[in-house]
Amino acid sequence: MRAFNFSAGPAMLPTAVLEQAQSELLDWQGSGMSVMEVSHRSKAFVACADQTEALLREVLGVPDNYRVLFLQGGASAQFDAIPMNLTAPGDRVAFLHTGQWSAKAIKGAKRQGLDVEVLADEAASGYTTVPAADSYRVDPGVAYLHYTPNETIGGVEFDYVPETGDVPLVADFSSTILSRPVDVSRYGLIYAGAQKNMGPSGLCVVLVRDDLLGRARPTTPSVLQYADMAASDSMLNTPPTFSLYLLGLILQWVKETGGLTAMAERNQAKASALYAAIDGSGFYSNPVAVNARSWMNVPFLVPDAALEKPFVAEAAAAGLTSLAGHRSVGGMRASIYNAMPIEGVRALIDFMAAFEQSNG
Amino acid sequence: MRAFNFSAGPAMLPTAVLEQAQSELLDWQGSGMSVMEVSHRSKAFVACADQTEALLREVLGVPDNYRVLFLQGGASAQFDAIPMNLTAPGDRVAFLHTGQWSAKAIKGAKRQGLDVEVLADEAASGYTTVPAADSYRVDPGVAYLHYTPNETIGGVEFDYVPETGDVPLVADFSSTILSRPVDVSRYGLIYAGAQKNMGPSGLCVVLVRDDLLGRARPTTPSVLQYADMAASDSMLNTPPTFSLYLLGLILQWVKETGGLTAMAERNQAKASALYAAIDGSGFYSNPVAVNARSWMNVPFLVPDAALEKPFVAEAAAAGLTSLAGHRSVGGMRASIYNAMPIEGVRALIDFMAAFEQSNG
Repeated sequence: MRAFNFSAGPAMLPTAVLEQAQSELLDWQGSGMSVMEVSHRSKAFVACADQTEALLREVLGVPDNYRVLFLQGGASAQFDAIPMNLTAPGDRVAFLHTGQWSAKAIKGAKRQGLDVEVLADEAASGYTTVPAADSYRVDPGVAYLHYTPNETIGGVEFDYVPETGDVPLVADFSSTILSRPVDVSRYGLIYAGAQKNMGPSGLCVVLVRDDLLGRARPTTPSVLQYADMAASDSMLNTPPTFSLYLLGLILQWVKETGGLTAMAERNQAKASALYAAIDGSGFYSNPVAVNARSWMNVPFLVPDAALEKPFVAEAAAAGLTSLAGHRSVGGMRASIYNAMPIEGVRALIDFMAAFEQSNG
Repeated sequence: MRAFNFSAGPAMLPTAVLEQAQSELLDWQGSGMSVMEVSHRSKAFVACADQTEALLREVLGVPDNYRVLFLQGGASAQFDAIPMNLTAPGDRVAFLHTGQWSAKAIKGAKRQGLDVEVLADEAASGYTTVPAADSYRVDPGVAYLHYTPNETIGGVEFDYVPETGDVPLVADFSSTILSRPVDVSRYGLIYAGAQKNMGPSGLCVVLVRDDLLGRARPTTPSVLQYADMAASDSMLNTPPTFSLYLLGLILQWVKETGGLTAMAERNQAKASALYAAIDGSGFYSNPVAVNARSWMNVPFLVPDAALEKPFVAEAAAAGLTSLAGHRSVGGMRASIYNAMPIEGVRALIDFMAAFEQSNG
């Protein structure tokens, strides 16, 4: 039986996608070969990669003046690659600091010699809030504003898109991409590791506006050089072919299940049900400001930390896996990405009620 | 029916490995989850990664004073990462230039500001030779000597390990790792993209001697920083988990089929049979110097280039796929990595004879 897997990433994948991958794992398109064994330069695989890009453009509504790059190294590689591609050492950049992932992005920008201006730092709330839209101003002289629309660890999500005027907006969409419609044209650059809503780990998608290409530092490693990668259709070197193939299957699944509008409705329903269960109990609590609650990652606490281990263990025994909070913060966390069905959330809510009954 | 797939990479994988991956694709170790869906921080996955490293150490005989790193970005990322980790800008390094892959490594070293000394350049032979061991001298003042033990495109392989004294020897083993025993202690650093003998694309293995760690430039991207990656067991960020899992299965298969000594015997037998067929025919030819012939990649020509397309197409129809030479050189190329059975080579030899009969 398939578990309801609440892992923050790598995370649950659609069962239908895994079943298709399984059925053709040794014989892709009647070739007698696994898709993993096929040359990335073959006609069949190039068509697969092209179709994946076309589906991503269609599903996300990527405008024509944006390039789609399929890179390696996860979002973490982009913490260095973005400064390397968009700035010169000493340039000023602005950040909104809302948790551990924005902290890593800031660290990368500093490593690449940038003058980092933190416009808002939510330390005072313990990173359980997002800055109000009118509480900071973006200086037109910065190279970009970077923010993290969803903090996977804290379960903190922006309920608005920052206004930046002519300053390019750069965003780490790792844990929220494909979860709802997004107006790509508001952004200069969007990046996202695949291992939440887009497949297994090992692939990172970058959407970058054309006019931001061509500024890379000469020492940028070739595999992270946007303009060269764009010119080679992300095949300057061998791409992670199996991940690209799976992304294509997942995008097809998103499309067939109603696209991002339907996905957003399902995700909102899942999150609402879970937050309602937490709020309606005197036992569980969520530490995040209501306006900043994530649809994707729902951290919650029990009254006594000694109950955390039993909660996680008993849940796992009931087929609800990976509910421990991030090692840096403890507590519990339910990541409810696209592939988590509403039945999984209902099963979690039922389990929570039963656990409260026994331990409350 | 499974094809005999002669692709240079991504390449054929052992059928037994693919069958195991297929059987447990939706339920790994009875977890109700795919290995792709499991957190890289989970006990089960950490054990899988640890076992993969232990198997690699056992099969390859990696000494204790070497670290094993599992990185992303393929060997191409290492063309920049090696200079970034081992040198300062302006340092002198030495190269043996034997084809397109050493050329890319040289380009990376120059991109990172190194003073590149090319000790041997096989341009005169059209890159069909390796330099004689006594034809160059490694200056003790260089940071390292880099060479490419096997040039995948040219089908050119060193029949000896260069002597470098105290100078670290750095080698791109992408297309030859695990094909035969190797004395790792002769090297300062070995790197290899996985997509030939170690699994699907998206994973790069780096073996680096302890004393070479800790010299990284401060601007090295975190995901390419050897010391930090070593300290975090290659989990500074999310590793390509499915690729790591498959590498473990492949190493188990190598071990069960007799380890690298038996692998070398099989690979030598395959290569000998194919070269004998080429040499014994008046129709086919291999352009490489006999002492430099690759066990892994066997390029060959027909008397008339107009016969290349029919050869490749008819072979594919007979279940012998991906025999076209690299787009930069044309001709044909049979890549016969570990997973290609001797039956595949025999089938190719039979097909070649029949094609010669019809077209000779």
